[in-house]
Amino acid sequence: MSHEVVVIEGDGIGREVVPAAVDVLEALPVDFEFVSAEAGDAVKAETGEALPAETYDLAADADATLFGAAGETAADVILPLREAVDSFVNVRPAKAYPGVDAVRPETDVVFLRENTEGVYAGHEDRLSDDLSTLTRVVTSSASRELAEFACEFVEDGRGPAGDPDEGFTVAHKANVMRETDGRFRKVVLAVAEERGVDADEELMDAFATKLPLDPSQYGVIVCPNLAGDVLSDLAAGLVGGLGLLPSANVGHDNALFEPVHGTAPDIAGEGVANPTAAILSAAMLVEYFGHVEEGQRVRDAVEGVLSDGPRTGDLGGDATTEDVTAAIVDRL
Amino acid sequence: MSHEVVVIEGDGIGREVVPAAVDVLEALPVDFEFVSAEAGDAVKAETGEALPAETYDLAADADATLFGAAGETAADVILPLREAVDSFVNVRPAKAYPGVDAVRPETDVVFLRENTEGVYAGHEDRLSDDLSTLTRVVTSSASRELAEFACEFVEDGRGPAGDPDEGFTVAHKANVMRETDGRFRKVVLAVAEERGVDADEELMDAFATKLPLDPSQYGVIVCPNLAGDVLSDLAAGLVGGLGLLPSANVGHDNALFEPVHGTAPDIAGEGVANPTAAILSAAMLVEYFGHVEEGQRVRDAVEGVLSDGPRTGDLGGDATTEDVTAAIVDRL
Ligand SMILES: CC(C)[C@H](C(=O)O)[C@@H](O)C(=O)O
Ligand SMILES: CC(C)[C@H](C(=O)O)[C@@H](O)C(=O)O
Repeated sequence: MSHEVVVIEGDGIGREVVPAAVDVLEALPVDFEFVSAEAGDAVKAETGEALPAETYDLAADADATLFGAAGETAADVILPLREAVDSFVNVRPAKAYPGVDAVRPETDVVFLRENTEGVYAGHEDRLSDDLSTLTRVVTSSASRELAEFACEFVEDGRGPAGDPDEGFTVAHKANVMRETDGRFRKVVLAVAEERGVDADEELMDAFATKLPLDPSQYGVIVCPNLAGDVLSDLAAGLVGGLGLLPSANVGHDNALFEPVHGTAPDIAGEGVANPTAAILSAAMLVEYFGHVEEGQRVRDAVEGVLSDGPRTGDLGGDATTEDVTAAIVDRL
Repeated sequence: MSHEVVVIEGDGIGREVVPAAVDVLEALPVDFEFVSAEAGDAVKAETGEALPAETYDLAADADATLFGAAGETAADVILPLREAVDSFVNVRPAKAYPGVDAVRPETDVVFLRENTEGVYAGHEDRLSDDLSTLTRVVTSSASRELAEFACEFVEDGRGPAGDPDEGFTVAHKANVMRETDGRFRKVVLAVAEERGVDADEELMDAFATKLPLDPSQYGVIVCPNLAGDVLSDLAAGLVGGLGLLPSANVGHDNALFEPVHGTAPDIAGEGVANPTAAILSAAMLVEYFGHVEEGQRVRDAVEGVLSDGPRTGDLGGDATTEDVTAAIVDRL
């Protein structure tokens, strides 16, 4: 069975790292059919639309999408794309690799970020010349769906410890957002209890203090949408930046994979971007399709190259995107 | 002229660190009149109210309030108290001290956090069994008041660099909250421009990545309420925890000073709490009243003791709260 994957390079280094990830996918004994599509600043400059309807439809109808990065138009591209694939959870691992300079080398966490609501539901109003409001939305149904995913994730040993007993931490701000985050935390903790999964909780501000102080105390972290955005980016800072971080937007019957980094305009076009995040996103795609062993092979190859292979400039080396990609393909 | 200061110890180590801070204030050649008041879990257990009306009124009518910490009832105490003193900005310095173990010893930043609105305006509704909403509020007037405070703060050389030219960074999420944070960022940047203060901006998630990677690139950071809560707590993690961090909630004609830490129930009652954050909060109070030189003396004494005086357990020593306080008073 062939998996139909829409490939959207987007802008900047997206045009370099996504082809690298596709090279890696093509080197695997898995049958993919790739379909190219456009999104981002460049296509907006041409057509007036950052996310052409055709791209949206292709992503919605495919088995999965691999996306690179978009510049100024990032939000106009990525938020509707998450909707196109009907994603309810954004899976964001942040792991420090041996040999890569990290503020906190012990960091090994996975954020499971609610991906449909919170402030991203985005009902905003300009009520007067002075005052604007935003309606933040939290439903029990979305919270429950996320919690069920989190429980399965942990039960399947997909957390950093690989241990079904490791449980998860819910990070929220229910002491202030009592009704909305109160609903979120209550539903998530209740689902965990029902399924016999260990769950504890942290206020998101306390979590932001404790994570840099001692990342080793955390594994899987479940959060509302914006909390997941900010806290996972904090974890990115602890492992040495966004250059290495993949992510998966998982839906019911579709998914979208993207490196967490942006377009890196300072180095775009030079062929020296670090393809690691895009390639690790491809590994998540491979695993999403059930090819767990192949996903692991990609991951192992990436780790091998990170520890003793060629390095791009962001990691202190002078290798090109192609060098790194070839080294990873070599190790598969 | 005597300054009337309401003193609220609250719960847990608040009952130890606030008296320490009062000892320091009493050792200064400044005339204070202290009035005690109750708030927190203990008074709630007794009277049913975490913040008795009497305490609220005392704080509202005083020249300033010094608060310790509250337990479970923290939000019920601190949020109305901020309102009682009519505070529009929460000033949160986060500085790593020589000799104190820090994840990022170069950290020296001050957050100026909007203190009245955002999600803290707190209009929440349970619209159905499944759905709750929170109305986040952003006004141009509150954003402008914060921005004007920030400009003065920088112009007066009160930023970490002490340089009127250092400017500030606005951290926000206007790419998603386009109308509300869009309003915030636009007003803050416009005020800076009007006053000739340098201002740049960061998305709050990008800021959360960059701060741990390189805190030295930031000085004064201006943010909406919840962003300021989370990002300043992140900075706390980089300087070695909450134990050292003071804060000031500044209003038009009144103010509230509080250590950023909580009640630390694990060590409460043992006389071994670190009084530094409370004492630095007292220094901010002294400066708020215009006694800049005395405030600086307190700060210098604290830094001296941190670098070669007695230390409490959180900093690897075995001194008591009293030892540390006496050492600080000695150096005044
Ligand atoms: C570009 C932006 C809308 C997006 C988000 O806030 O989700 C990004 O920060 C991310 O985390 O993928
Ligand atoms: C206790 C809580 C309501 C408070 C806040 O969110 O402002 C605290 O976290 C703080 O930062 O002072």
